[in-house]
Amino acid sequence: MRLATLDIDGRSQAAVETSRGFVGLPFSNVGDLLQVPRWREIAEQNLSGDVVVSISEVTYLAVVTEPRKVICCGLNYRDHILEMGRDLPLFPTLFTKYADSLAAPFAELSFGSESTEIDWEAELAVVVGAEVKNCSPEQALSAIAGYTISNDISMRDWQRRTLQWFQGKAFDTSTPLGPVLVTPDECDPKAGLIITCHVNGEEVQHGNTSTLVFDSAALISYISRFTTLRPGDVILTGTPSGVGMAQTPPKFLRDGDVLVTSIEGIGELRNLISIDN
Amino acid sequence: MRLATLDIDGRSQAAVETSRGFVGLPFSNVGDLLQVPRWREIAEQNLSGDVVVSISEVTYLAVVTEPRKVICCGLNYRDHILEMGRDLPLFPTLFTKYADSLAAPFAELSFGSESTEIDWEAELAVVVGAEVKNCSPEQALSAIAGYTISNDISMRDWQRRTLQWFQGKAFDTSTPLGPVLVTPDECDPKAGLIITCHVNGEEVQHGNTSTLVFDSAALISYISRFTTLRPGDVILTGTPSGVGMAQTPPKFLRDGDVLVTSIEGIGELRNLISIDN
Repeated sequence: MRLATLDIDGRSQAAVETSRGFVGLPFSNVGDLLQVPRWREIAEQNLSGDVVVSISEVTYLAVVTEPRKVICCGLNYRDHILEMGRDLPLFPTLFTKYADSLAAPFAELSFGSESTEIDWEAELAVVVGAEVKNCSPEQALSAIAGYTISNDISMRDWQRRTLQWFQGKAFDTSTPLGPVLVTPDECDPKAGLIITCHVNGEEVQHGNTSTLVFDSAALISYISRFTTLRPGDVILTGTPSGVGMAQTPPKFLRDGDVLVTSIEGIGELRNLISIDN
Repeated sequence: MRLATLDIDGRSQAAVETSRGFVGLPFSNVGDLLQVPRWREIAEQNLSGDVVVSISEVTYLAVVTEPRKVICCGLNYRDHILEMGRDLPLFPTLFTKYADSLAAPFAELSFGSESTEIDWEAELAVVVGAEVKNCSPEQALSAIAGYTISNDISMRDWQRRTLQWFQGKAFDTSTPLGPVLVTPDECDPKAGLIITCHVNGEEVQHGNTSTLVFDSAALISYISRFTTLRPGDVILTGTPSGVGMAQTPPKFLRDGDVLVTSIEGIGELRNLISIDN
């Protein structure tokens, strides 16, 4: 199944995608749907329901709008780590964003003038579908609601100000998330999905989710050793090579750029960048 | 005023402290009270109300139980930074915890066997009382609901596993917070409050809040440049010298230790430490 949070006449509503268009679900967003243990069943039962909006006319919101936790993993693509001449990590490098950090998948992203080094990071995101604490990777796998796309847009100047990356990673509405949540029966990142990032049509990142050092289940299991994860929580799994700051000379987003982030089998984010400077 | 979140017969309730005892407020916790813009007025009007529990019989919960954001500042005590031979920082070093990280001010804190390097960090905490984004230090000052005490108990082995401290800082129920929120008219950390930490009666930390490099208003103003702060959000302002890992040899908490964290004019936290190992 492919689930989405839509803007229907100014009102937020969860919906399930069908070949006929989106069928509305009785929840204001996918995060609320996931709070109900039988969410899969509810969504399946609605597959034959009335279409509320066609796929060509849809307005997407962030697929989960109010996660309690948004946890990100850095340095997680094997090919990127090895090409940088580094050893594979024993532990995932984790940092955080907030619900406030999220943005709609096709939103214009406005950044004001606080940062002059705004960089892209295409990422696979996994959404938690059940409460877990101290769970094994196997238990974690069955707690996954599905997969979606995000771009962990990073303010490199703020990220480098101190040893801790957080302040460069948690700007409000910096992180588009969506457009749909694809359930694991239709999407297997471990088998390998191509992930790309394009800036103004030029491909800047090209990776494969099969090369993640810590896959989604491993990340959920590891995180659950120190904190409880709950339905709707979001984990960003890291970015492949090709970020702007690693280029010579470094390249950053400029006012008017179009940023497209895509993952095979899920879809794409498309964001116009607006920067006051 | 001194506000608290109490356990009254198994039910959580906000209350205001009086010389007669605690007077109940019509909110389930101080965080909910702070959502109402005229929270000060409501609390003041209740100062003459019926006492629900005497001060000697009170059971405190974390003074704010469900903050959306818990942001921590590291490396913030001037005397500690200078004694370490480091330059004063230009920017605050920020990282995060969760609502799940919080614990009651007199709770037994159980840590299982995940970490063998559990360390103390006595900290002044400031609670936000109004929504702020891009605010000046002056605006930030007027957005402060009050001050309380916390201990940013840190799993040093997990904190050191990667460059990012988060995973050693966000263990569930690792961070006692309370016992009361003291409003700024009765508490001025900038004027200088003695902050101490004792382990089994031995003083291990002794600092003064007047030596913070970034005071509460400066932190709120800085954070508000990248993310919105809202009523009930909590900021931990950093710890003075004397943490266990800086001792020779390093010293960590052990099963059965009693950890007491106190700030002049606010009160103290007292936590029995329980570790399976």
